[in-house]
Amino acid sequence: MPAAPSASYSITARLEVPAGGPSVSRLTNTVESAGGSITALDVTASGHERLRIDVTIAATSTDHADRLVEAIREIEGVTLGKVSDRTFLMHLGGKIEMQSKHPIRNRDDLSMVYTPGVARVCLAIAENPDDARRLTIKRNTVAVVTDGSAVLGLGNIGPKAALPVMEGKAALFKRFAGIDAWPICLDTQDPDEIVRAVQVMAPGFAGINLEDISAPRCFEIERRLRETLDIPVFHDDQHGTAIVVLAALTNALRVVGKKIRDVRIVMSGAGAAGTAILKLLLSAGAGHVVVADVRGVVHTGRDDLGTDLRWIAEHTNEQGLTGTLKEAVVGADVFVGVSAPNVLDGSDIAAMATDSIVFALANPDPEVDPAAALEHAAVVATGRSDFPNQINNVLVFPGVFRGLVDAQSRHISDDMLLAAARALASVVSDDEVNPNYIIPSVFHPEVSSVVAAAVRDAVLAERQNPAG
Amino acid sequence: MPAAPSASYSITARLEVPAGGPSVSRLTNTVESAGGSITALDVTASGHERLRIDVTIAATSTDHADRLVEAIREIEGVTLGKVSDRTFLMHLGGKIEMQSKHPIRNRDDLSMVYTPGVARVCLAIAENPDDARRLTIKRNTVAVVTDGSAVLGLGNIGPKAALPVMEGKAALFKRFAGIDAWPICLDTQDPDEIVRAVQVMAPGFAGINLEDISAPRCFEIERRLRETLDIPVFHDDQHGTAIVVLAALTNALRVVGKKIRDVRIVMSGAGAAGTAILKLLLSAGAGHVVVADVRGVVHTGRDDLGTDLRWIAEHTNEQGLTGTLKEAVVGADVFVGVSAPNVLDGSDIAAMATDSIVFALANPDPEVDPAAALEHAAVVATGRSDFPNQINNVLVFPGVFRGLVDAQSRHISDDMLLAAARALASVVSDDEVNPNYIIPSVFHPEVSSVVAAAVRDAVLAERQNPAG
Repeated sequence: MPAAPSASYSITARLEVPAGGPSVSRLTNTVESAGGSITALDVTASGHERLRIDVTIAATSTDHADRLVEAIREIEGVTLGKVSDRTFLMHLGGKIEMQSKHPIRNRDDLSMVYTPGVARVCLAIAENPDDARRLTIKRNTVAVVTDGSAVLGLGNIGPKAALPVMEGKAALFKRFAGIDAWPICLDTQDPDEIVRAVQVMAPGFAGINLEDISAPRCFEIERRLRETLDIPVFHDDQHGTAIVVLAALTNALRVVGKKIRDVRIVMSGAGAAGTAILKLLLSAGAGHVVVADVRGVVHTGRDDLGTDLRWIAEHTNEQGLTGTLKEAVVGADVFVGVSAPNVLDGSDIAAMATDSIVFALANPDPEVDPAAALEHAAVVATGRSDFPNQINNVLVFPGVFRGLVDAQSRHISDDMLLAAARALASVVSDDEVNPNYIIPSVFHPEVSSVVAAAVRDAVLAERQNPAG
Repeated sequence: MPAAPSASYSITARLEVPAGGPSVSRLTNTVESAGGSITALDVTASGHERLRIDVTIAATSTDHADRLVEAIREIEGVTLGKVSDRTFLMHLGGKIEMQSKHPIRNRDDLSMVYTPGVARVCLAIAENPDDARRLTIKRNTVAVVTDGSAVLGLGNIGPKAALPVMEGKAALFKRFAGIDAWPICLDTQDPDEIVRAVQVMAPGFAGINLEDISAPRCFEIERRLRETLDIPVFHDDQHGTAIVVLAALTNALRVVGKKIRDVRIVMSGAGAAGTAILKLLLSAGAGHVVVADVRGVVHTGRDDLGTDLRWIAEHTNEQGLTGTLKEAVVGADVFVGVSAPNVLDGSDIAAMATDSIVFALANPDPEVDPAAALEHAAVVATGRSDFPNQINNVLVFPGVFRGLVDAQSRHISDDMLLAAARALASVVSDDEVNPNYIIPSVFHPEVSSVVAAAVRDAVLAERQNPAG
């Protein structure tokens, strides 16, 4: 499954070429026949003899970009100058910054922003600590917390190397929901220390977004923080993914005309995302779920069950299935993979029920080749942006926190997660829903506000009726 | 010493008055005769019968503002509408925010700011962790850390109530030095927990600015953090104050033509600021210092000396003075107070040496009435903005961190503090220096860059010559 050229592997090369003659067309031909895609070509200086050209080229990988540069270097008459990696350029010095909301032009400004005026604001909060949600950044600020133990698909790369992801996350919080998020990268992977660090830094934040913390530590860390903090704690890798999957499945079931309580769902993967997806599917009424991990189907008879797998065994697989994943998917209506590349092939999908639904979410290489899956399944979704139906957490976390923060929620509940999933599914109308459009684009203008409103309403409903 | 009306106690009142007639002049007369100062008067709606006026008035205190409102309410024909407190309005929702440096307009942007492009940047840092100072916000970001135990003159008001001060500090970091600072308000006052929390959150920051942490805990916390972190740790209440005091004293000595190694210096206060000032004065070559606390002069014969006071007793007061502060200042050349209001009066200043220098820095009420001190002393400085020679940390911390961050310093040394003080003093030229101008304004355009350059040079000098 070759990838298409992407901006994320794009370079900008500065060239000098002879003015006149075929140099520019040779350049574009060379790049295109080497599989690159020219996305910009600017003449930045022009003389009688020579032109200076900045050409931006999307490649499919770092190696491919290197090969493109070599191919350009060999064009007759072309002098190759500086080659910049656009992604690295964008990260230079970091991707986010702090801004003051007010100008500080003179002593009067200073006396209100800082001493002595600020003292009265401090005293007001000392008298009524809840005023911190009105008179400080706590009103709109979320901490993006990681220990760098499970970053993207890169694994345990540590807190400093995780920082570019957390900055990107913060930028997305602002872009899609107007939330001020700040990255906190922790130099410890001990659950006790992580829990304590987040507890003590909580006063300045309205919510905690845990990010890229490996299982099973993430379960304990989240549980203990939820039990002790008076602000919501959300592990995006778990709950963000679960909400998008439930929303997408809701719409996929609309496409094929099946009901979540009736279908047989087989999941591959019992890690952080898999466990959260399972729990949300069960909360949403899923009646028949079977989970498989690397050792095959999870059932109560297995002798290798820890606390988490035992919970899964006891809450799924009511028929007591044993055996392999491949055996379990035979006749299934839905496959949800959050595990590893290529654990299934086209023949496995062919063996599923008619009008089957396949979510192959391993990144960058899905559990089954989506092209092969599409030959047999009615609906296919992946985590990739170069196929239809991308399952992308950016659809969820900004709106969820917008709703939580606006409602000044002190916690997060399953009802709020379900409300978010329902709201996200509802963005795709009956007219629009089809096998290639079960989930909106992250740039759909209504996604964040619709999810936020649903979460806010769920918070307010719970507050009015705590027993419900 | 009545305070002048200040923007920090200013209100904006919405009024309706009859169109025509003397209502507006009655309004201005009433405010002025009640001691208020009108700083803005806008007619925001005008009809045949009535005008709507927004009037902004500076008062001297909250009570005074209340009295002004009552006086306005009683003016014939005036209808009083909403009254807003300008300082509180400025704090609504917090004073700082997070901004993305790059627009996220489409999938290409997304693929560079976030996945998949960000993964290559993460891998680069995982291979070479120092690249975090190049490719992430670590390059320019400082944590402003407090436990809320000694906030301004307000005491132990806790982390939430401290947040407005930390936001203001962050805003000043940006305004005066372009540094991205983020407040971290800790929900613990246990030194072990504070040290550990700062240690584990350090990867995302280029420096730690400790703020408003009470003595003696602040000494231990700073020392342990400096021993274990690879980024500079600076307690502004200690070292910021010390640098400004040394700079101001340097220039005051220029005014009176005395030398720091010759003068007799008496200090009042042995807390966080006092101890740091003392140490920096000694590093700068001060030859004769005596320190007094609430129990009088600190000397080796006292039976109440803890570790910190014993250090002071052993490094000062070479003549073995005993007795009270008032006795100690007789004949002294310099008084530096960082203690409590009104511990001295005019007669004490009269008893000092000729051309004496008085720094009375207790806020808001100094150790001695500055007007009374000026009758006898050659140079007087305070912490107040309504007298000449304000000792204000804003002169120092932005430039110090700019220099440290630009030089990618891994620590902070006495040489760097001394360099900052010398640089700050040098901003006042020989032509300019006089008894009322020993220290520049915080809005002097060169302060931050001059201090930053000196600190950066000191870092580089130490790096080239670690033994020196």
